[in-house]
Amino acid sequence: MSKKLLCELVLKSWDSTVKRTNKLFNELSDEEIKKEVAPNKNRAIYLLGHLVAVNDMMLPLLDLGEPQFPKLTEIYLKNADDPTNDEFTVKELREYWSISNTTLSDALTKLTEDQWLEKHTKISDEDFAVEPHRNKLNILMSRTNHLSYHLGQLILIDKKE
Amino acid sequence: MSKKLLCELVLKSWDSTVKRTNKLFNELSDEEIKKEVAPNKNRAIYLLGHLVAVNDMMLPLLDLGEPQFPKLTEIYLKNADDPTNDEFTVKELREYWSISNTTLSDALTKLTEDQWLEKHTKISDEDFAVEPHRNKLNILMSRTNHLSYHLGQLILIDKKE
Repeated sequence: MSKKLLCELVLKSWDSTVKRTNKLFNELSDEEIKKEVAPNKNRAIYLLGHLVAVNDMMLPLLDLGEPQFPKLTEIYLKNADDPTNDEFTVKELREYWSISNTTLSDALTKLTEDQWLEKHTKISDEDFAVEPHRNKLNILMSRTNHLSYHLGQLILIDKKE
Repeated sequence: MSKKLLCELVLKSWDSTVKRTNKLFNELSDEEIKKEVAPNKNRAIYLLGHLVAVNDMMLPLLDLGEPQFPKLTEIYLKNADDPTNDEFTVKELREYWSISNTTLSDALTKLTEDQWLEKHTKISDEDFAVEPHRNKLNILMSRTNHLSYHLGQLILIDKKE
């Protein structure tokens, strides 16, 4: 019972952070999403693409399937924000974000407690035997923190009344 | 075994976020800590006081003791940042932050797995019977997200070379 409860806690925490981030993106206009969160820092459009790409890479990492948007990796994971290279529009990225959250949410709710405690795909059996905390649940917890970190930045963008 | 492991995951996640925040505060000079994280947003000195106050309130919430710095509540929890009212110096707040982390860390490591699953002090027995996820571990997870949220903001302050 308590193992199930603990897994649910982590899932709830992820879900509520996604919900808050989603609400914020919905409140920002396309123009506002093109603004920097602070002078000379990442633009929200970059963070939007970055968060989709990070979501997307959780699929293979948690052994839940193939990434849906590998085309985002180069721009939003491997490189810093480059305002001269907006290959994807805000509209496209909003759509990817929505699809990515639905896919991920469906997949995450299917994992059983025992599966949450399994190793993720980027660690070897040998290492996992020594470091059993490097499991799938830990990935979700760490991604929730990562999302909160960027949510704290996105909230700094001034919205029009 | 797995219950213990899951509690350890949450503690590890808290510890590593505190460590990252601590490192960042140590890298910022007193002058830099007086800067805003973005134009017209909270100054880092306010966030430092806020994080000490939030840490401090975890003690009674987790039934681990009395707050050590109740004098911070009014300025850093109940009110917004007010640059005209710096009652505490950066030096003092740095010291409180350090003391607060030591106290909290000592107290947290003493909780057993079963204690982590107990209700926190702000929920009634009746409500907890219906919502068993509102336990102490959930508080720590939510405070870790809160810390990550503000860490994402603090990192925006430009440091001198």
